[in-house]
Amino acid sequence: MKIDAWGNSKIEDYNHVFKEFGLEEFNYENIVDHYLFKRKILIAQRDFNKISDAIKNKKPFLQLTGIASSGDLHLGHKLDIDFFNLFKNLGAKGKFCICDIDAYVSRPDSKVPSLDFAKKVAIKNVADIIALGVNPNDIYVQSQKEKEYYSFVFELSKKISSNMFEGIYGHKDIGKISAVLLQIGDILHIQLPFMWGKNPTITGIGLEQDPHARITRDISRELNYNLEVPSFFYFEHQSGLKEGSKMSSSEPSTAIFLKDSPAEVKRKILNAFTGGKETLEEQKENGGNPEICKIYEIIRFHNPDSSFLEKTYTRCKEGKLNCGDCKKNCTAFLNNFLENHQKRCKEAMNIAEKIVLGKQ
Amino acid sequence: MKIDAWGNSKIEDYNHVFKEFGLEEFNYENIVDHYLFKRKILIAQRDFNKISDAIKNKKPFLQLTGIASSGDLHLGHKLDIDFFNLFKNLGAKGKFCICDIDAYVSRPDSKVPSLDFAKKVAIKNVADIIALGVNPNDIYVQSQKEKEYYSFVFELSKKISSNMFEGIYGHKDIGKISAVLLQIGDILHIQLPFMWGKNPTITGIGLEQDPHARITRDISRELNYNLEVPSFFYFEHQSGLKEGSKMSSSEPSTAIFLKDSPAEVKRKILNAFTGGKETLEEQKENGGNPEICKIYEIIRFHNPDSSFLEKTYTRCKEGKLNCGDCKKNCTAFLNNFLENHQKRCKEAMNIAEKIVLGKQ
Repeated sequence: MKIDAWGNSKIEDYNHVFKEFGLEEFNYENIVDHYLFKRKILIAQRDFNKISDAIKNKKPFLQLTGIASSGDLHLGHKLDIDFFNLFKNLGAKGKFCICDIDAYVSRPDSKVPSLDFAKKVAIKNVADIIALGVNPNDIYVQSQKEKEYYSFVFELSKKISSNMFEGIYGHKDIGKISAVLLQIGDILHIQLPFMWGKNPTITGIGLEQDPHARITRDISRELNYNLEVPSFFYFEHQSGLKEGSKMSSSEPSTAIFLKDSPAEVKRKILNAFTGGKETLEEQKENGGNPEICKIYEIIRFHNPDSSFLEKTYTRCKEGKLNCGDCKKNCTAFLNNFLENHQKRCKEAMNIAEKIVLGKQ
Repeated sequence: MKIDAWGNSKIEDYNHVFKEFGLEEFNYENIVDHYLFKRKILIAQRDFNKISDAIKNKKPFLQLTGIASSGDLHLGHKLDIDFFNLFKNLGAKGKFCICDIDAYVSRPDSKVPSLDFAKKVAIKNVADIIALGVNPNDIYVQSQKEKEYYSFVFELSKKISSNMFEGIYGHKDIGKISAVLLQIGDILHIQLPFMWGKNPTITGIGLEQDPHARITRDISRELNYNLEVPSFFYFEHQSGLKEGSKMSSSEPSTAIFLKDSPAEVKRKILNAFTGGKETLEEQKENGGNPEICKIYEIIRFHNPDSSFLEKTYTRCKEGKLNCGDCKKNCTAFLNNFLENHQKRCKEAMNIAEKIVLGKQ
């Protein structure tokens, strides 16, 4: 099985991937009392013991999370941001990176026609991220960094051979090589002397991003800087609203965007794939299947109320909750959340513009 | 014939290169009254008419010159700097780039083991360049640029395919790809809105650097920015003191360094290859051969006194000047020049350090 960092496939066979690439299962559910740790959203890890030690012993650790988006953020992105907030609360210093240069150089012009376009997208993304509770001081865009950061990214280029790159990614596209150098720079630069120096670091990614994790870890060992090999956790991707798909900006009908109106949310949820039976009668008799249900997944990923989640699961299984009512609940929850979010997002636009364009 | 931008060979067959790569002869000797234009040091050009028009009509034009050095500067580098000063006097705005990141990423660790090493070299280089008359405000190092510069360099990576790169350079070394992106960025960024905007630009290089010129010109046409395709002039490289060699830091005995002591200069000149005959008698009878003489080349490249140059040529040809006396003249000229230069260089070290390390 080939992991394609730029693909859009859902990885079904986790065990196979674990064996082939040396990932380890995530067994740290109990070190933190938080719904994101309890709900099997965390699948795998590399060197997470360094982070659990730091959390347990209240020792310093760092985090770096990044989003390279070509459009509006959706619920899938929210997960990255929720994890960032969680690790910040657990004591991590760190940065949230908006990968505007990466978004431009790694994507076709049809998606991201110019760096200016990428910056316009970045402004909206930053506003969303601030609205989701990230401190503006913790956010940077790649195009507004210190010169030390850029020098470091160029330094990295001496440590990757094109054979190494082709072995991992299967191609040698120079724009994507640049994007990878920037990503490695993002994750490692927080350990440089001008940032926080050598410390354990944690970055959360989807499984299909593991090629980036491996090359980043390899290079951290080869640099002349004194660096801790970075740790990673791998989370399940929010899937799309249709059967089998990943939530993705490229398929807007399958995604709940953070800017969606109440009517849009209502319509999308109404059309979402569920684990319900063909008839109401059958459902009452045999119960539904929350494991494959997109509505249930939204609740599992985003509703912090664990007793509500459990009730939903049990009542669905027992045939006591029909899909129509469950969808109404979910729509109400999302629209309540989005109403507040969009208000905060509007208020954050000014500061987002300053962060992305560097204006005073 | 393959032009190898990282090689160290002297290009003998100019006409062949002209035909294969579409270079044009340099026929602009008379537009400027300066020894550097008169002495056939300028071999070829691309679009130099844009620059000669600007000079004749006192219209604005820009220049960008760069040095990526792994050690001390020698007389060969001085030529780059002399041309920079000349075009500045002819009205060019512009920048002199010290390519510290380029020097690190494009060279083996055995030559440039770290970016810090490259910066230490850069400090000495900048001091030399200031001592040779370049205004400190016109000098930058790659590692101390504006963020707009770095964003632009990454943007360029989307415009080069790895096939295009391999076609031109014959390999896909990622460090060297980074170096090329930086070089293209150096030459083109002076036309961006945050610098001087669209203008004719001139850059002087050796013939073996033409691959860089071609890729830079190609990319200037493909970018979304409004850019003038950059012009280039190609100068003859100062050759080494031994027969047939190029003056190079990697062969210290064949180079006169700007930091050489009077005794070193005397020794090196004494051992230099000349156009002299085997015996003094034969020389008196048939005259020497200044065309192949390294001493004559030094005078031709560096002594602004054209009547002295002509006298040397004629008297050598007539057998009236023997190599010993000629070497004494050359040593005296160089040591007089270097004594003053080294004094100015010492005085410039402080400001050079500020330019390279960015300290106040």
